[in-house]
Amino acid sequence: MTLSRLTLVGAGPGDPGLITLKGYQAIAEADVILYDALVDPEVLKHARPHAILECVGKRAGGPSWEQEAIHNRIAELAPHHEHIVRLKGGDPFVFGRGFEEVEFARTLGITVMVIPGVTSATSVPALAGIPVTHREVSRSFQVITASTNNGLLSEDLLKSTALPGTKIILMGLSKLKEIVDLYLKHFSGSLGIAILEKGSSSEQRTISGTLENIVHRAQLAQVKAPAIIIVGEVVHLLKNQTVYGS
Amino acid sequence: MTLSRLTLVGAGPGDPGLITLKGYQAIAEADVILYDALVDPEVLKHARPHAILECVGKRAGGPSWEQEAIHNRIAELAPHHEHIVRLKGGDPFVFGRGFEEVEFARTLGITVMVIPGVTSATSVPALAGIPVTHREVSRSFQVITASTNNGLLSEDLLKSTALPGTKIILMGLSKLKEIVDLYLKHFSGSLGIAILEKGSSSEQRTISGTLENIVHRAQLAQVKAPAIIIVGEVVHLLKNQTVYGS
Repeated sequence: MTLSRLTLVGAGPGDPGLITLKGYQAIAEADVILYDALVDPEVLKHARPHAILECVGKRAGGPSWEQEAIHNRIAELAPHHEHIVRLKGGDPFVFGRGFEEVEFARTLGITVMVIPGVTSATSVPALAGIPVTHREVSRSFQVITASTNNGLLSEDLLKSTALPGTKIILMGLSKLKEIVDLYLKHFSGSLGIAILEKGSSSEQRTISGTLENIVHRAQLAQVKAPAIIIVGEVVHLLKNQTVYGS
Repeated sequence: MTLSRLTLVGAGPGDPGLITLKGYQAIAEADVILYDALVDPEVLKHARPHAILECVGKRAGGPSWEQEAIHNRIAELAPHHEHIVRLKGGDPFVFGRGFEEVEFARTLGITVMVIPGVTSATSVPALAGIPVTHREVSRSFQVITASTNNGLLSEDLLKSTALPGTKIILMGLSKLKEIVDLYLKHFSGSLGIAILEKGSSSEQRTISGTLENIVHRAQLAQVKAPAIIIVGEVVHLLKNQTVYGS
């Protein structure tokens, strides 16, 4: 029985050029690559010719693997392959459930290595021209998932109104109106907000405005997931960007 | 007069293998590289033989360039060199003042491109074995600088006590006791906290504990900057790590 090792690699926010040198190297040396649906196929071209490439991804709306099924697949493959790469979008330890896979692999006696990636939470705003912090307007940022399993706004989002810094909301597009209504109770209607659609791809699109007009603008622009919502004074630093709506 | 372009590149948290492929490529093509003191010299080995390499970095305690001096240097170099790379530690838009350099360069008519990097805020915890979020214990994280220019705890830090998620505190080591005292007023003394010293280098060290014992442990371990402080339930997920003190 082969003593397998698992490398958990963050593929970055989408653009295949935003994977790290170490991540690239792990892919080029892997015997098996288990990748997420959101990973760009271009990245997989660096794999060895005989490497096994298997998509275990979860894509909103489509068929998805349960976390347990991914664990089982790791357990099945481990005895037969020396180096398994688990390639996840963004950074695997930021809302990625990568830690659960690391823990599981360790229970099997597999050596695990983690190669962090560029997280979408900060890089997608940067690519859109919005710094998540700025010496004069924001000295902190918070990254939050919008909803819980029961479909309500998360406690973390509800409590984020107590903070002065930038808010970066993931998986929140379907709750945009609720989020805006919440923030309007605590912040000025002129506070900046932007929706970053398909971040880091060639189709990245920015819809920006204020708490008062963003819901209307998002409707006009027919924004679709995946999208990141960013709220805060830093959005007003955005210049020369296409703005949809009025 | 040459029409210059500037590429702002995030070098990642320290390990030279954690720069992105695009960042690497920009370095390999640059005519001039203006780099921070915290950038690993290994990364600069990829520069062209005749490229101008200039350190404009700020290191705690040492002589540092004023932001304005960096701007002036960009203005001096721009007319004579086609491609200037500004290489910054971590991600240049996360507490990096990268945005100010972008804005300044644009006023000179220079074309600017941004290549995001792996931010220390999430990657240093990951490399230490701590996920910043975890489905069962933390659904958000906040990244905060500890102090303001007047030496007091920042408003963002003071207000972070309202949040249930993970707190990641940058530049806070010299204020460890004050931070712990603040959190002890709002959270249980058994809440996890870890200090991640020299993150992402071969000398990375983790000192973990609880709000109750971390100040003592940090003293015993003689922790030094640079260090990141992480506070939250996720710290309890840390296993098999060297713990200093008792």
